[in-house]
Parts: sequence; structure tokens; C-alpha cells
Amino acid sequence: MDAKFTGHISKQFNSDMDGLKNHILMMGGAVENQVLNAVKSLVEADSELAAQVRVTEKQINSMELSLDEECARVLALRQPAASDLRMVIAISKTITDLERIGDEAKKIAKLAILLVETGQSPRGYFEAKHIGAHVAGMVHDALDAFARLDVDMALKVAQEDRSVDAEYESAMRQLVTFMMEDPRSISRVLNVLWALRALERIGDHARNISEHVIYLVKGTDVRHANLEQVKSQMAGNF
Amino acid sequence: MDAKFTGHISKQFNSDMDGLKNHILMMGGAVENQVLNAVKSLVEADSELAAQVRVTEKQINSMELSLDEECARVLALRQPAASDLRMVIAISKTITDLERIGDEAKKIAKLAILLVETGQSPRGYFEAKHIGAHVAGMVHDALDAFARLDVDMALKVAQEDRSVDAEYESAMRQLVTFMMEDPRSISRVLNVLWALRALERIGDHARNISEHVIYLVKGTDVRHANLEQVKSQMAGNF
Repeated sequence: MDAKFTGHISKQFNSDMDGLKNHILMMGGAVENQVLNAVKSLVEADSELAAQVRVTEKQINSMELSLDEECARVLALRQPAASDLRMVIAISKTITDLERIGDEAKKIAKLAILLVETGQSPRGYFEAKHIGAHVAGMVHDALDAFARLDVDMALKVAQEDRSVDAEYESAMRQLVTFMMEDPRSISRVLNVLWALRALERIGDHARNISEHVIYLVKGTDVRHANLEQVKSQMAGNF
Repeated sequence: MDAKFTGHISKQFNSDMDGLKNHILMMGGAVENQVLNAVKSLVEADSELAAQVRVTEKQINSMELSLDEECARVLALRQPAASDLRMVIAISKTITDLERIGDEAKKIAKLAILLVETGQSPRGYFEAKHIGAHVAGMVHDALDAFARLDVDMALKVAQEDRSVDAEYESAMRQLVTFMMEDPRSISRVLNVLWALRALERIGDHARNISEHVIYLVKGTDVRHANLEQVKSQMAGNF
């Protein structure tokens, strides 16, 4: 195989890898927007925006399918090794997390429509707005960490997930108290509660993405390890 | 490359693929058991069994990590093509769904412990038992479909998911009515409600697995398609 041919192959390979990276970041941007719009539609009782989220969800599903195909094609034709193979695997897992985030955003939009139809629920919007902004930021940072292969930022996202969990627990307790005080509000408050739970799951998926980044950069699989273990492993690697 | 060497490579390759298939089915069996035990611990208020589910969850997490590594190794060393590549991709996605099912089972076990500690909740156990048996059956059938590459059985699992969703919705309505009638029970009934939601998600993951089987056998990606579309596509393929 002469040098020119090898050069051609590796150029093609790099352009395939760049394509994959660009497309996952595009999907990520679209999903981040979905989260922001879903929360906005809930907090501002905007059923038109909610309907738009549900339409865009279909586009995100197509992105998932075509990115999955792209991964399979790169694996089959380019047979990447070492860090490139890790990149394709990390992208393939990130696709799934992004699609699930899109799913949760769609659920929130559905709840927004329901809440507009049945009259607004009197509580929980403040919490939804706050936690919503928090998890949307996590999705953004996780993707940023992916784009820059920034392990520190990825670790930060994993830490954020803990405070989201705490915020969620405290919001839940408030809503339960509220339901007890006013049982007629139960159905409506439950819908707010489902929305908060969807947001909490979005935080989990952002954390998953940040873990794929760490795996990618460090070759360390940090799922199921706690943060202290991860940090000490990272420190050992520097 | 002489025939002996090729034979050696392909023998090694087949044994790698068989290893992967066996290991995913082993993980599947363990996860199915987790679902059954988690539901049993909830329905029978057995906190010892619930504690055991939480311990076994850690083993399932290790299975996930080692199976993921096994997939990466097969991709890197064997560079499978066509249907073998599809098999590795399907296994890799199934690993994620199985791990998530294990997660949901752990949540149910946690709720079982909580319910034992705070006194039993008066309602919703019958529904949990019924839906629990239903989704455990779906996990079993999805894995069976995987083992036998049985598309018909996989389609059946996807259909089952619809009736689980309907059962879940109806149970939810009953529990909401019950909370309204007896607001003091709200916290406890909410815990039953979270358990039902976890079961509903297990059904979703079983459906995902059955879709990986269809992708594997037919090369058709059926995610995000509705059942009628899938069936007509399948019919066209026969």
C-alpha cells in the first residue's frame, strides 16, 4: 500500500470521525433546546411551545437513528482501534442518553399541555424552573466537556447531579405537604411532580454523558464508582 | 494466510461471539430474577429480600462493565462485519437496557424497605403484583426472543408493553382517588406509585430489548415506529 493511498484512507477516516463528533454535538444542542423549551412551556403554561417540543422530538428520534447507523458504518468500514474505538463507543452510548433526555423533555411538554387544559397547578413551578435551569446547564456542560474532552468539567457535571438530587427531594417533600393540605389539588400537583421527576432523570443522563467523556479520555470506566473513587483515580492518572 | 491459521482465527471469533451471547443471557437471567425478587419484597413486605436485591444490584453493575469491555474487545480485535457487527451492537444496547432494569428493580427494593419501616401502605399491592408479573414475563420473553432470534416473539413483547401501559394508567387513577379519600395516606401511597412507575419503565426496557432483536434479525430499526408500521415492514420481509 503506497503512502498516497494510506493518506487517502486516513483522511477519509478522520473526516468520518469528525462527522460523527459534529453530529453528536448537533443532536446535543437540539436536545438541550428541547429541555429549555419544555421547562419554559410548563412554567409559562405555553401549550403552543409544548406542542412544538413534541414535534421536534420526532426530529431528534431521526437524528438518533441516523447517528446509530453512522456509528455502525464507521465500525464496519473503518474498523477503528484504541482511542478512536473508544470515541465511537462513547458516542454510541451518548446517543442513547441524548435520546432519553429528549423523551423526558417530551413528557414535560405533555404535562404542560395537560396542566394548561385542566387549569394551572398552584405550586411547584418555581422548583421546576430552578431545577430545569440546573439540569439544562448540566446537559450543556456535559456536551462542552465532550467537545473539548475536558475531564475536569465532566467531573463537575457528575457533582452537580448530587445537588439536583437534593433539590428534587426537597421539592418533593414540599409538594407532598401541599397535597395533604389541599387534597383536591392532588391530581394537578402530581403532574408537577412527574415533571420534576423527569427533570431529575435528565440530570442523571447528563451525568451519564459526563461519565462517557471520562471513559473516553482516561479509559477509566467510572460508572457505578462514587465520586471520591473517581477523583482519586483521576489524580493518580495525572 | 494458510487455511489452518484462518480456521484458527474464525474458531476464536466464533468462541468470542458465543461467549458474548452466553454472558448477555446470564446477565438477563440475573436481572429477571431481580425484578421478581424486588416485586416479591414489596408485595410481601420482606425487607430481607429487598436488602438482598440491593446487594445483587452491585453484581449486575459489574456484569455490565465486564460485558461492555468484552464488546469493545471483540470490536477491536475481531472487527466483525455484517450480521456479527449487528449482533455486537445489539448486545451492547441490550446491556444498557438490562442495567437500567436492574436499577429500577433496586428502586423498588428501596421502596419496599421504606414501606416496611413506615408501616404498610393499604393499597396498590395487588396492582404491583399483577404488573410486576407481567413485566417480569416481558423481560423473560425478550431474552428468549434474543436467544432464539425469534422476531415473532419480539413483536409480541412490543405489543405486551401497550397493555402494561394501560394497566399502569388504570392503577394510577385508582391510587389518586385513594389519596383524595384519605390524604393522610399520601406519602405512603406515593411510594407504591413510584414502584408502579418503576415497573412500567421495566416494561419499556423489555420492549427496547425486543426491538434490538428485530434490528438484529431483520436489519430494520424499529425504534420510534409504531407497531402497525413494524408489522407491515416485517410482512414485507417474509
